[in-house]
Amino acid sequence: MQSEIITIGDELLIGQTVDTNSAWMAKKLNAIGVSVFQITSVSDDVDHILSALRDASERSDLVLITGGLGPTKDDITKQTLCKYFDTHLVMHHDVRERIEAYFASRGLPALEVNKKQAEMPANATVVPNAKGTAQGMWFEKEGTVYVSMPGVPYEMQCIMEDHLLELIQKRFKRPHIEHYTIQTSGIGESMLAALVEDWENSLGAEGISLAYLPSPGIVKLRLTSIGEDKKAIQEKVQRKAEEFKHLAAKYIFGEGDDQIEEVVGKLLEQKEMTVSTAESCTGGTIASSITKRPGSSAYFIGSIVAYNDDVKINLLGVQAETLQKCGAVSAETVIEMAEGARKSLNTTFSVATSGIAGPDGGTQTKPVGLIYVAVSGPQGTVVEELKFSSDRDRNILRTTRSALSLLRIEILRCQAL
Amino acid sequence: MQSEIITIGDELLIGQTVDTNSAWMAKKLNAIGVSVFQITSVSDDVDHILSALRDASERSDLVLITGGLGPTKDDITKQTLCKYFDTHLVMHHDVRERIEAYFASRGLPALEVNKKQAEMPANATVVPNAKGTAQGMWFEKEGTVYVSMPGVPYEMQCIMEDHLLELIQKRFKRPHIEHYTIQTSGIGESMLAALVEDWENSLGAEGISLAYLPSPGIVKLRLTSIGEDKKAIQEKVQRKAEEFKHLAAKYIFGEGDDQIEEVVGKLLEQKEMTVSTAESCTGGTIASSITKRPGSSAYFIGSIVAYNDDVKINLLGVQAETLQKCGAVSAETVIEMAEGARKSLNTTFSVATSGIAGPDGGTQTKPVGLIYVAVSGPQGTVVEELKFSSDRDRNILRTTRSALSLLRIEILRCQAL
Repeated sequence: MQSEIITIGDELLIGQTVDTNSAWMAKKLNAIGVSVFQITSVSDDVDHILSALRDASERSDLVLITGGLGPTKDDITKQTLCKYFDTHLVMHHDVRERIEAYFASRGLPALEVNKKQAEMPANATVVPNAKGTAQGMWFEKEGTVYVSMPGVPYEMQCIMEDHLLELIQKRFKRPHIEHYTIQTSGIGESMLAALVEDWENSLGAEGISLAYLPSPGIVKLRLTSIGEDKKAIQEKVQRKAEEFKHLAAKYIFGEGDDQIEEVVGKLLEQKEMTVSTAESCTGGTIASSITKRPGSSAYFIGSIVAYNDDVKINLLGVQAETLQKCGAVSAETVIEMAEGARKSLNTTFSVATSGIAGPDGGTQTKPVGLIYVAVSGPQGTVVEELKFSSDRDRNILRTTRSALSLLRIEILRCQAL
Repeated sequence: MQSEIITIGDELLIGQTVDTNSAWMAKKLNAIGVSVFQITSVSDDVDHILSALRDASERSDLVLITGGLGPTKDDITKQTLCKYFDTHLVMHHDVRERIEAYFASRGLPALEVNKKQAEMPANATVVPNAKGTAQGMWFEKEGTVYVSMPGVPYEMQCIMEDHLLELIQKRFKRPHIEHYTIQTSGIGESMLAALVEDWENSLGAEGISLAYLPSPGIVKLRLTSIGEDKKAIQEKVQRKAEEFKHLAAKYIFGEGDDQIEEVVGKLLEQKEMTVSTAESCTGGTIASSITKRPGSSAYFIGSIVAYNDDVKINLLGVQAETLQKCGAVSAETVIEMAEGARKSLNTTFSVATSGIAGPDGGTQTKPVGLIYVAVSGPQGTVVEELKFSSDRDRNILRTTRSALSLLRIEILRCQAL
């Protein structure tokens, strides 16, 4: 079976609001075997909404609609649904009582516009909203199911999780959809595709599709298969994923929605090890990434961001001679930075970066995008030379992820010793 | 004139990727007087893409398409466009050379799949992509313009900003849309609305609409007016903006897309002053923000990220007694951190933070979201107590912006002395 999502609201079409509802809903629907064929964002306009509903019903069995259920004048979804289903609004007294109780619990009076939210199309079945005054509404017409929900993300999520996902599972027979996502770093999309070409060619015959999802410093791979026999599908996707893991083992840092900083954080936590950073070109971004994770104070001790050479010398103990001979952007300097921070901050590992983030500041021998990353640990210090582009933001992000990726490898290597 | 956006990619329909491209594009299009009628997300499927293109062309003059232009097998947009326009792929040798040069500059070989990205439909006009190998392509058919771009956000953005927005403005007659955006910090949306209530009520009669765009620590205000007489519209929007600036002067830090870290950076640059940071709960995020700006090495010297109390004592010179008596999360500690970093890193200003970012770690007297920010400078040290929520990411971002906002005020105060 197939579904569609229609999101209603001018704020989406002027770019004021990013439509996060659709991705959230799509993920939940996919998880229960309901594929999403199309997502359509339309304006708060009667004719536009009507034509979007008609088009969707021709393609799909289930149409989920969000937005336009608020109490103000620009919210017209309910009136439009009446027109679409050729019906009229009726007052639901139980809903009205709930709305009055909702306001009373907050010590506020329910305004007339809020009470009117209990009026709903006569053919609607209420899908209750525990977190707001706009109820979910379930409709059926000529074999298609339509569900209208408010656009406020946490209200829509509450309706779906409390009731709707269960109602959909009861109403529709669904195939099983199996997704398997693998996260890689340290290799580009094309190189990875070349590395696993034969394996990729073997997927079609198994009815498995493959997608590469690149972002700075990271390439995600997603295997997907759909069918009736859940166990058989899971097994073949799992088997193909294992084959990939074998082929590209050294580049894989996680699965699903794993973030590299979380993977590293968990490793450090498990092994009761600590980390510090000594950052030049990343300017604190590695520390910022590591400390995003709640509980990171268990393994993150601190950082020295050394933009200026004096800071490299005074706080990190880099030799003035090294800076003079090799320059701040060199393997030699970044090694001394990592070792200096490890000593000064007294941590198991230290990560250091130095480079020319851009867009300017390059020379013939040291172009923009030349970056050195070092990781110092109990087993010594390793260094990597990276060559990126002139895009400053991207270079900082890629360096951060490369540094965390190298740190991960060193943590694992340390354990193996 | 009217446009539509079609985003292509299975990752959108399974909820793996939130479609941020559409909002970004819609905002840019609106800013040049091009309204967006509909946003449609479709799968990597030939028939589905073809029908989406046909439907869009019946409604709109301009169709912007993103996604499906990568070098891997799941990317089918180009072949589909050939089918739609009844044409075939031809090699663009200049593009192929650019792709080879792009890889060569990074010391990598261009693979055959990358070189094939220089093949494009015969009726396409190339819209160059300076940040990647997939080019933008401009098509015209029966009065409708279609532009296909890669789905990688920074590549699409680069194509639009470097070339496409200008090409669209040349090709289509549009009404004039005047936007004026003012950036404020240090005041919430409702408080700001109350402060300027009479002014806001006066906008309707002038044909100006107002939007409040809140994000953590910042509220943007956008005035908008549309019409044929460009000069008259600009004048009235300008006049109303000046009235607002007079009413809310102390909260305004910039205009348009100004970022607080850029505003602070420019001020420091102009005054030839320097800054350092001493960060606990923000974990390097303030340093990371400051160093995002190209050329920040002129005024940013370095940071000490002191998550651990020993680092606060050893590197920042915080008194062990202060930590014991007042705790790490206190006005006293954060003042000593700022003063310690200013001395140790020898800068005009230093910014320090300490707090409980959450989601856990709070106590009865020091709840999650309690955060102290200090700025030390030539005129002494000031400290602010902030009370936020339990959302870690939001707290870190709000603290970062509050700290930079306080730094801005101190730089201006220093000048006034």
